[in-house]
Amino acid sequence: MKVGIVMGSRNDLPVVEKAIHVLQEYGVEFEVRVLSAHRCPDEAKEFAASARSGGFSVLIAAAGMAAHLAGALAANTTLPVIGLPLRAACSDGTDALLSTVMMPSGIPVATVAIDGAKNAALLAVEIMALSDPELASKLQNARRADKEKTLAADREIREKYKQN
Amino acid sequence: MKVGIVMGSRNDLPVVEKAIHVLQEYGVEFEVRVLSAHRCPDEAKEFAASARSGGFSVLIAAAGMAAHLAGALAANTTLPVIGLPLRAACSDGTDALLSTVMMPSGIPVATVAIDGAKNAALLAVEIMALSDPELASKLQNARRADKEKTLAADREIREKYKQN
Amino acid sequence: MKVGIVMGSRNDLPVVEKAIHVLQEYGVEFEVRVLSAHRCPDEAKEFAASARSGGFSVLIAAAGMAAHLAGALAANTTLPVIGLPLRAACSDGTDALLSTVMMPSGIPVATVAIDGAKNAALLAVEIMALSDPELASKLQNARRADKEKTLAADREIREKYKQN
Amino acid sequence: MKVGIVMGSRNDLPVVEKAIHVLQEYGVEFEVRVLSAHRCPDEAKEFAASARSGGFSVLIAAAGMAAHLAGALAANTTLPVIGLPLRAACSDGTDALLSTVMMPSGIPVATVAIDGAKNAALLAVEIMALSDPELASKLQNARRADKEKTLAADREIREKYKQN
Amino acid sequence: MKVGIVMGSRNDLPVVEKAIHVLQEYGVEFEVRVLSAHRCPDEAKEFAASARSGGFSVLIAAAGMAAHLAGALAANTTLPVIGLPLRAACSDGTDALLSTVMMPSGIPVATVAIDGAKNAALLAVEIMALSDPELASKLQNARRADKEKTLAADREIREKYKQN
Amino acid sequence: MKVGIVMGSRNDLPVVEKAIHVLQEYGVEFEVRVLSAHRCPDEAKEFAASARSGGFSVLIAAAGMAAHLAGALAANTTLPVIGLPLRAACSDGTDALLSTVMMPSGIPVATVAIDGAKNAALLAVEIMALSDPELASKLQNARRADKEKTLAADREIREKYKQN
Amino acid sequence: MKVGIVMGSRNDLPVVEKAIHVLQEYGVEFEVRVLSAHRCPDEAKEFAASARSGGFSVLIAAAGMAAHLAGALAANTTLPVIGLPLRAACSDGTDALLSTVMMPSGIPVATVAIDGAKNAALLAVEIMALSDPELASKLQNARRADKEKTLAADREIREKYKQN
Amino acid sequence: MKVGIVMGSRNDLPVVEKAIHVLQEYGVEFEVRVLSAHRCPDEAKEFAASARSGGFSVLIAAAGMAAHLAGALAANTTLPVIGLPLRAACSDGTDALLSTVMMPSGIPVATVAIDGAKNAALLAVEIMALSDPELASKLQNARRADKEKTLAADREIREKYKQN
Repeated sequence: MKVGIVMGSRNDLPVVEKAIHVLQEYGVEFEVRVLSAHRCPDEAKEFAASARSGGFSVLIAAAGMAAHLAGALAANTTLPVIGLPLRAACSDGTDALLSTVMMPSGIPVATVAIDGAKNAALLAVEIMALSDPELASKLQNARRADKEKTLAADREIREKYKQN
Repeated sequence: MKVGIVMGSRNDLPVVEKAIHVLQEYGVEFEVRVLSAHRCPDEAKEFAASARSGGFSVLIAAAGMAAHLAGALAANTTLPVIGLPLRAACSDGTDALLSTVMMPSGIPVATVAIDGAKNAALLAVEIMALSDPELASKLQNARRADKEKTLAADREIREKYKQN
Repeated sequence: MKVGIVMGSRNDLPVVEKAIHVLQEYGVEFEVRVLSAHRCPDEAKEFAASARSGGFSVLIAAAGMAAHLAGALAANTTLPVIGLPLRAACSDGTDALLSTVMMPSGIPVATVAIDGAKNAALLAVEIMALSDPELASKLQNARRADKEKTLAADREIREKYKQN
Repeated sequence: MKVGIVMGSRNDLPVVEKAIHVLQEYGVEFEVRVLSAHRCPDEAKEFAASARSGGFSVLIAAAGMAAHLAGALAANTTLPVIGLPLRAACSDGTDALLSTVMMPSGIPVATVAIDGAKNAALLAVEIMALSDPELASKLQNARRADKEKTLAADREIREKYKQN
Repeated sequence: MKVGIVMGSRNDLPVVEKAIHVLQEYGVEFEVRVLSAHRCPDEAKEFAASARSGGFSVLIAAAGMAAHLAGALAANTTLPVIGLPLRAACSDGTDALLSTVMMPSGIPVATVAIDGAKNAALLAVEIMALSDPELASKLQNARRADKEKTLAADREIREKYKQN
Repeated sequence: MKVGIVMGSRNDLPVVEKAIHVLQEYGVEFEVRVLSAHRCPDEAKEFAASARSGGFSVLIAAAGMAAHLAGALAANTTLPVIGLPLRAACSDGTDALLSTVMMPSGIPVATVAIDGAKNAALLAVEIMALSDPELASKLQNARRADKEKTLAADREIREKYKQN
Repeated sequence: MKVGIVMGSRNDLPVVEKAIHVLQEYGVEFEVRVLSAHRCPDEAKEFAASARSGGFSVLIAAAGMAAHLAGALAANTTLPVIGLPLRAACSDGTDALLSTVMMPSGIPVATVAIDGAKNAALLAVEIMALSDPELASKLQNARRADKEKTLAADREIREKYKQN
Repeated sequence: MKVGIVMGSRNDLPVVEKAIHVLQEYGVEFEVRVLSAHRCPDEAKEFAASARSGGFSVLIAAAGMAAHLAGALAANTTLPVIGLPLRAACSDGTDALLSTVMMPSGIPVATVAIDGAKNAALLAVEIMALSDPELASKLQNARRADKEKTLAADREIREKYKQN
């Protein structure tokens, strides 16, 4: 079982890398692809259509502007597809968010925040953890660690502004 | 030479019919299809990929919400594709407009106004008229008729509010 | 393994029912709750915190306006949480969409379209189908049926507008 | 009687500091906390639930993106909660504004402008001044000083552009 | 100690009445005014400027479109001013929300949701409850009652969809 | 000296009539035209270009969607042009507002609110009143009357909710 | 006869200076003020209320965020008031545009583009030119000069890309 | 047969140049003009009105803010007009997009993405290729090359992240 990370353009790599790092931390197997819904629709389609039989459990699709990638993958598989809308040179990401999340009935896309690469990966891990108790433990540990970091910041800031 | 009108769902027909009527008025040959980028991506792709050899000159793609249809057709043909973004039960059409018009470099979509079915058809006629002088004449006559209607309304309203 | 459907208010039932019907069609076990992140935060938290041990695999959270429900559940579980943003009497759902999807790093919410109840349920089924081949088959069959319906509409409309 | 200032993340401190400085100027007692509605929901809840008995009069909650913090505190106390929506790396603050202000009936949040940290603190002071005439005087003096500064700028600019 | 409720136009009464009913339920003294920042700026100013000495603790300002009323009152008093942005015949309330909440530094307005009349009143009660323990108790009781209503709905809906 | 009221389409009359009534009340001379920037650009241009010599002082241009009318008139005259953006069947008026108000340097358009026909006319009257003291008096009287109406509503509502 | 230019804050001068330069070019008399609707409402009101008797013909009000200044002046005079919405550190100017243009019936504000200082001044000159033929000539000459500059650019660019 | 590229201002050249380069690559004849719908409306009109007889097949109109240029050309010709909305110093391009795309019935504008200069030119080439098989071949070759570039990036990235 592995995660497929697809980005619409090589230029999306800097944001997508944050998702890759999360999967590496969790020791989840993954494959990274550059497949555009518009520039190579057949390859994108082929990838999605054979994803289940190819051993993928979840697909992450990162794209900007009229971001059709997540929907194009979802149209060709019934695996869960996570949509990661990206900001672009000439847009703040609202176009990508709406193009990704407002899918018609029948073809869901699990959309995360604009540029929310880390959460896209975590969502994939959460899904895979349903059948992998060890992964579930790691997720809970990470949550605890996150919480500890916040509480440490809390202690520090609280102390800093303590009044006499 | 004919126009292909594709709608993403049967429910889009009431708006799309306005485009059909324009093509009928102009005596332009056309074919009407219901092909969803998400529900039948292969058929949509096949239609676009064979459109040029099948005698189509221009494609009109009408869709709402995360409206991928125009882009999905454009990805599979180098014929001009006109995108017609539609309002939907749960959206005012901004999502469809952005999903249709914000296409990445390399795959243009000629987008018209939200629910602008009549203009989608007129744009198709304008394109076909480039090699059909008779169609060009009809377009100019229609403009003149439109203008006459506006000027008639002008005379009527002007008279109605004429002060002494 | 079952799905937890949580709505923020009883008034959300008419939209949420579409999700319930999907789960019933797929024969997926589920539980329906009314738990507000603001009116009964302890109960909402408790539900999320014990969801994994209580046999839940996926949670669906439906809420409108400043829709915190999905995030509040996600903060208390590492199960996948699907956010369903709802339109409200005084808003078109943009507030709920942004409040649901723009989650900070570490706590993902899988967001679907505004009022996209059917897709929220299908996404849950897709996730559960990863470990249930029969469910996966049903999903593929449903896709095929959806496609057939679209193709039937295509044949009908195509015929209707066939020119001589 | 004191003010509780809560930020969702340590990174919010640069904006929040403007609120702290206002409280220091007014000699109002305060406590500063880093408590995330998502990363440490129990601690956030606990803080709000015990705020009244802990001597707090007003809470200020600063958060960005899907900013649930103010609502999460408000859900656990009937003290006035002031919501301070913040801009974030990938958003202009509209998401935080809507997530903070569009609260459902029953759980009010007193929202100020995006990044409006100074006004969040002044609003807290205005509330505390209701039972502290000295604070009320200070507020009126500050308003007068603000006004004087504006009138001084007015005299300077007026003079600068005086025509002969 | 009493609450001043000001609306910009008589037509705003249907929404504002929800705030009035809340104050009546809580037994809080109040006065209702129709004072437009634009149609009778002197009277509006006079009302705000003398509000503190006139026994008011909190002002609620309800207005639509370019909703200046809350800001105009806040400019003339250092009492807490609650801004209630309203939808109007030709706008969805975004204009009123931004006109009310985006106040410049120095003059805070405590803004609630579009048409959020009930929360405007509850926020006023929360502020007055700081020096009125009985009011604080009533607020907590109301919260408990709200919670009970939600939990009752939860039980009912949960039962309705219980599967065997 | 008279006002030219131009609407882009006969369908705009119901909103534009509110402007006409204001001019009639003030006894200001006016002429009403239906001239589309797109359907009869020459006539629109001709009207604007000869407006000053034709005895017009101010032009009001009412249009919806991609509302170019005000800009098209302003491009052909240095008379003040008032832009009145209209809502349309498929848009809430944001398109018309931005198309009217965001004019490039050199060609100003004095824009009023979406569907703000009455204010468009009042602005025209204010401009004409600069050289017509009687008109200036009427404006001041109307303001006083407006204020009286608001104060009467104030007295009535104040009384209605007076507490004992 | 002169123009009153009012800015809400000294910080607005860099944008407002473009309006001042236009008035200087046209030899129009003007006065520049810093008067905040919120920080010195009485002085702002006083300025507007006595503007007509003080020899002003037109007022320009420049402000950002919840930009009430234009409306506050307009509420106290029946002179034409031009609203100039400004971008601010934490907003793109949409808030200022809506706060300025969406005025309620009875109190018009002639709004120009966000940061459109030059057009605000030109609109003032157009209004004053109605009773000053020399000013009207200057405006027409400036238009001609603008046009000549555009046509010169046209010749240059046209030549540059001329193909053989 | 040639393409007319019109920009509203010389400052638009940096974006428009990307369209020019595409036409040069395809060996399509073109002419570049600077013609403002507002600063030289007669010349813009004249250009459009004589475009067909002057040997033009398609017009591209690039403009920002209240972008009327495409509509102004379209009003004076029945040739296909491609609208290219531009971002501007004080706007993100939403104003230009809406001003260009939301055309009224009868006068279509084929709108591409904000700053989408390359696609504007490609759309023009697609239209001209309808009667020029060589151009159609070039388009298909370019698509293939684009696809090859994407697939090469795919191979590279895929390899880079290959896990053992």
